[in-house]
Amino acid sequence: MQTVIIGSGNVAYHMAKAFRLNGIPLTQIFGRNGVELKKISEETGVPYSTEHLEDADLYIICVNDNSVESVSKMITKENCLVAHTSGSLPKETLTGPYRKSSFYPLQTFSKSKELDYKKIPFFIETENNEDQQLLFDLASKISENVMESNHEKRKYIHLTAVFACNFVNHLFARAKEVSDSQEIPFDYFLPLIDETVQKIHEVDPKAAQTGPAVRNDVRVLELHEQLLKDESLEIYKTMNHSIQKMYEL
Amino acid sequence: MQTVIIGSGNVAYHMAKAFRLNGIPLTQIFGRNGVELKKISEETGVPYSTEHLEDADLYIICVNDNSVESVSKMITKENCLVAHTSGSLPKETLTGPYRKSSFYPLQTFSKSKELDYKKIPFFIETENNEDQQLLFDLASKISENVMESNHEKRKYIHLTAVFACNFVNHLFARAKEVSDSQEIPFDYFLPLIDETVQKIHEVDPKAAQTGPAVRNDVRVLELHEQLLKDESLEIYKTMNHSIQKMYEL
Repeated sequence: MQTVIIGSGNVAYHMAKAFRLNGIPLTQIFGRNGVELKKISEETGVPYSTEHLEDADLYIICVNDNSVESVSKMITKENCLVAHTSGSLPKETLTGPYRKSSFYPLQTFSKSKELDYKKIPFFIETENNEDQQLLFDLASKISENVMESNHEKRKYIHLTAVFACNFVNHLFARAKEVSDSQEIPFDYFLPLIDETVQKIHEVDPKAAQTGPAVRNDVRVLELHEQLLKDESLEIYKTMNHSIQKMYEL
Repeated sequence: MQTVIIGSGNVAYHMAKAFRLNGIPLTQIFGRNGVELKKISEETGVPYSTEHLEDADLYIICVNDNSVESVSKMITKENCLVAHTSGSLPKETLTGPYRKSSFYPLQTFSKSKELDYKKIPFFIETENNEDQQLLFDLASKISENVMESNHEKRKYIHLTAVFACNFVNHLFARAKEVSDSQEIPFDYFLPLIDETVQKIHEVDPKAAQTGPAVRNDVRVLELHEQLLKDESLEIYKTMNHSIQKMYEL
């Protein structure tokens, strides 16, 4: 099977690496950014091009949501399968005469950070059973967690990930603003953060909740509000309100 | 030196365990809850009492913030050092004729969860250098990270911890509500969560931000808002607003 990855960003990079690590052949990496493509090509040994899209059986589009549609139009071949890797787009965003699918890896990708691909859940949606089997077999070579998922479900998976990953990271950024303001090294908080996450591997997060809001410690809540302003104060109030609602305080 | 721990909760339990693990003698664990004290006593070999507070050189009060003052009044001895373990109280909350101090371990404690005490930062405040040295030496037997910290600084440490631990856990709880609603196992998100936290061990969280808000993906932001309601919708809007403010979008 001839497979082409389209894109030169973080997802394309890790997808190409995951293929190579698991001995899955790749025909080409195609994209606009020659500098990035060259780096990926050098690391994975896969040929790249910014101009000529190779003929293939499977195209995996690893570009920003906003570019998926326009990129998908570049593929004019009929008898092939095209997959996007977006959590929030339906497979119908793909616009062309081919069979459409979604091949969504649930992870946050940076080029500078190595990943254990075996642990990344892949969510798959296709038009027919044959394609389903094809993508399922492919993903199973990379990961231990491969599942079917339609667009409706995928939207909620993506939304859950925004809370559990993007918003969590933003809380770290706001937390670091507070500690930076007092010249307290943010590193001091890493054991606490690690433990917070370790805990939910074993305990339901609702049962693991600690802190002033859940024990309704009005004195501390008022004291903290005096130390905050602007967006951090808004976050503080919103999160505490939500905690108190969840526990009916 | 005779040391007594007062309290029978999570902090008292781990404090007693940390002492025992590092060969620091304890005279007694004192508290109200005989059932819990008996368990801690059986695990650590330290005698306990719910009635008679032993004479000691150092008392470490490990109770809820709201009970620190009343518990501290039970100690009527003059020539001794008393420490509380609260992140948000000044040492002056301690009410009695003794020398006052704060001995604050920055961690989230559960009895069911083992901890690496070496990695827990301890923040210390005392009235004089001699006591400072005493608590510093004591904490250094338990942990590699021992620092001086006055009440003003400790307030901000505690506030940072609320963002980085309590609020992060609440985001996990709200995320799980979303995934539960679609019968998506929350376990699928653990590799993503682990990676999110691993990343900030290496990268400044502000630089690590990903997701629809930071790339100003209005389509996804609107789609997600339609999937949410009540407190989760409030969190969604507040966090996205804060992200967009931080990156001046």
